[in-house]
Amino acid sequence: MARIVVQKFGGSSVSSTEKIRKVAQRVKARRDEGWQLVVVVSAMGDTTDELLSLAKQISADPPRRELDMLLTCGERISMALLSMALQEVGVPAISFTGSQSGIITDDTHSQARIVEVKPGRIEEALGQGKVVIVAGYQGVSRGKEVTTLGRGGSDTSAVALAAALHADCEIYSDVDGIFSADPRIVPSAKKLDSISPEEMQELASAGAKVLNAQAVEFAREHGIVIHAKSTHTAGTGTRIEAKPGEQGRVRGVTCETDVWAFCVQGAPESLLELLDAHQVKPRSVSFDASGRTLVLVPLQDVHGPEVLRAKLPAGVTVLDDLGTVTCVGTGLHADALVLRKALSVAKSLSAPVTAMASSALQLTLVTERAHVKALTKSLHEALVG
Amino acid sequence: MARIVVQKFGGSSVSSTEKIRKVAQRVKARRDEGWQLVVVVSAMGDTTDELLSLAKQISADPPRRELDMLLTCGERISMALLSMALQEVGVPAISFTGSQSGIITDDTHSQARIVEVKPGRIEEALGQGKVVIVAGYQGVSRGKEVTTLGRGGSDTSAVALAAALHADCEIYSDVDGIFSADPRIVPSAKKLDSISPEEMQELASAGAKVLNAQAVEFAREHGIVIHAKSTHTAGTGTRIEAKPGEQGRVRGVTCETDVWAFCVQGAPESLLELLDAHQVKPRSVSFDASGRTLVLVPLQDVHGPEVLRAKLPAGVTVLDDLGTVTCVGTGLHADALVLRKALSVAKSLSAPVTAMASSALQLTLVTERAHVKALTKSLHEALVG
Repeated sequence: MARIVVQKFGGSSVSSTEKIRKVAQRVKARRDEGWQLVVVVSAMGDTTDELLSLAKQISADPPRRELDMLLTCGERISMALLSMALQEVGVPAISFTGSQSGIITDDTHSQARIVEVKPGRIEEALGQGKVVIVAGYQGVSRGKEVTTLGRGGSDTSAVALAAALHADCEIYSDVDGIFSADPRIVPSAKKLDSISPEEMQELASAGAKVLNAQAVEFAREHGIVIHAKSTHTAGTGTRIEAKPGEQGRVRGVTCETDVWAFCVQGAPESLLELLDAHQVKPRSVSFDASGRTLVLVPLQDVHGPEVLRAKLPAGVTVLDDLGTVTCVGTGLHADALVLRKALSVAKSLSAPVTAMASSALQLTLVTERAHVKALTKSLHEALVG
Repeated sequence: MARIVVQKFGGSSVSSTEKIRKVAQRVKARRDEGWQLVVVVSAMGDTTDELLSLAKQISADPPRRELDMLLTCGERISMALLSMALQEVGVPAISFTGSQSGIITDDTHSQARIVEVKPGRIEEALGQGKVVIVAGYQGVSRGKEVTTLGRGGSDTSAVALAAALHADCEIYSDVDGIFSADPRIVPSAKKLDSISPEEMQELASAGAKVLNAQAVEFAREHGIVIHAKSTHTAGTGTRIEAKPGEQGRVRGVTCETDVWAFCVQGAPESLLELLDAHQVKPRSVSFDASGRTLVLVPLQDVHGPEVLRAKLPAGVTVLDDLGTVTCVGTGLHADALVLRKALSVAKSLSAPVTAMASSALQLTLVTERAHVKALTKSLHEALVG
């Protein structure tokens, strides 16, 4: 029986009917090599943002359940178009929604987690020789409610399907795999041939857009090797798989400017409750230089940030002019050298270090947004080389 | 228990978030009067056409199944936005897809017919005091495939739900009910307080856009009285209900310029087979002045007309410069006077009558497109007054 590969194509890979035709050609070529294909697609280009802005015109804080109903249309549009494009070039294909694909989630709208995958219809269609197109980013709850998996959820859809189908998993984007930094910010950034899932998770949750952190976690839990490749070139890409990492070596540097820091005088409980009520998961909690508690939140996870700002408990202020630079590598916390180098680099750029957070796998410096790019560049030169 | 009313709002009534907010206010007002509401919405403005054009960029004749997957997004977007708008003004609301609404259809993609309605989830939500928003135009087959009901299908969704819920049925559009002709073409057109379902069906299938013919047929079969009203004014509208019609009286005149006439030398079987294969239902088959068979087809029902043109059997030509003008009234065929008047009016305008079709309820003249509007106006003056 032919091997199954799950391929995921992101929004920029399907942003026009022209690009969708190109993806169809790519899928056809792979099928001609004898593979069975399941293709997970994101929404076309900015579709999700456009739908979101419609919702925002109606409500500053739209009900999650209806938001999911709205946003899931984005992937449905691209999946139907890709299926048409494949059939147009003579490849039998069929598109399935998250629900039809058997992607069962919990009922946390807009941040749902996959609890089970029942790929019956997919296996049946594959058995009939069809290429199966699946709408990424979405699933259905046991209560038959349409749910979404949060930003970048299409990666998670692909990994979950690969696990359920015992298939290979390939995530396609505009770049040829994972780099030691964003080449647009650090021209000397190097492509990594492989990276451990743990390191990849840290990079992703610290702002690297290439792969979704939840997806990597899911892959790690289910022993799936993700292969990150380029939609446009035939490069070798990057394999995300466990390897004995070199202790204390910085594999990559990433940054994030789209964050808010909630600054708390005294106990942060009431703030954390508020964030929880809005299903906002803090990226990190730390003390700043003057001993206040700093709760870092990536803005992309916040629906209606201004609503949140308006509800802030007394004693909590928002610092919205900050950014983070994160060094990722196994065993960094044990390596005082990395911390010392990082701080001296920051000092040499006179980039104020508002706060720091470190774990076994990463060291994050919080600084003013204006300094983020320069700091990223210099830390990469000093620690990755 | 509160009475239930099913209200359907067409694409132009929800073409912007601003208009969607207005509809929400209207729904809220009705609810404040103590009604339980089920609101069926069409896609926003030109959304369906935009999605269709995406499909056409990929395939001249897109597979129906995928086309249904694509087009159903239009109504999902407007239903989610209207539900948000209602909750924004404090009205509990929930949106359901055709599938979630229990609208079960046969599996004829793009032209599906409703075979059953299981309104369990709707009744449950109504019982919880919620306004239920339903995506019109769509359903689900027993094989769990997403289907669409064809152009104007949202009207059918509304009627079917009204029948299943033993509810009143109100269809809202930009005009205050049914007129004796399109006021844009015939300024002297009068609003009808009521019209029989049979007459309404003829008007609708002959080009009147206000109501969908299938929907009217469905309403007649299930004894549902449709109330056609204006989204913008508080007018009395038109009730579509059986009344002893005045024999031979012309109730309305309508026209259609978006038609093709297939002209057949000899037997039309092969043409009819071709049309059937493309799920195209001819509006009428008649002889033209020179004894050839003329098969009239409304273009809106044809996906990829040029594909059809390319497949035409020998001896079949397309006349694509024609239009139709139709007089509707009960017992017209028994009234030679109407026919005589109609023909003399056409003659006075020197509008060539390419073909004629008549039934118990209507008289249709096929003429050159350029003459359609003038003929409509003059026939209305002569026969309706």
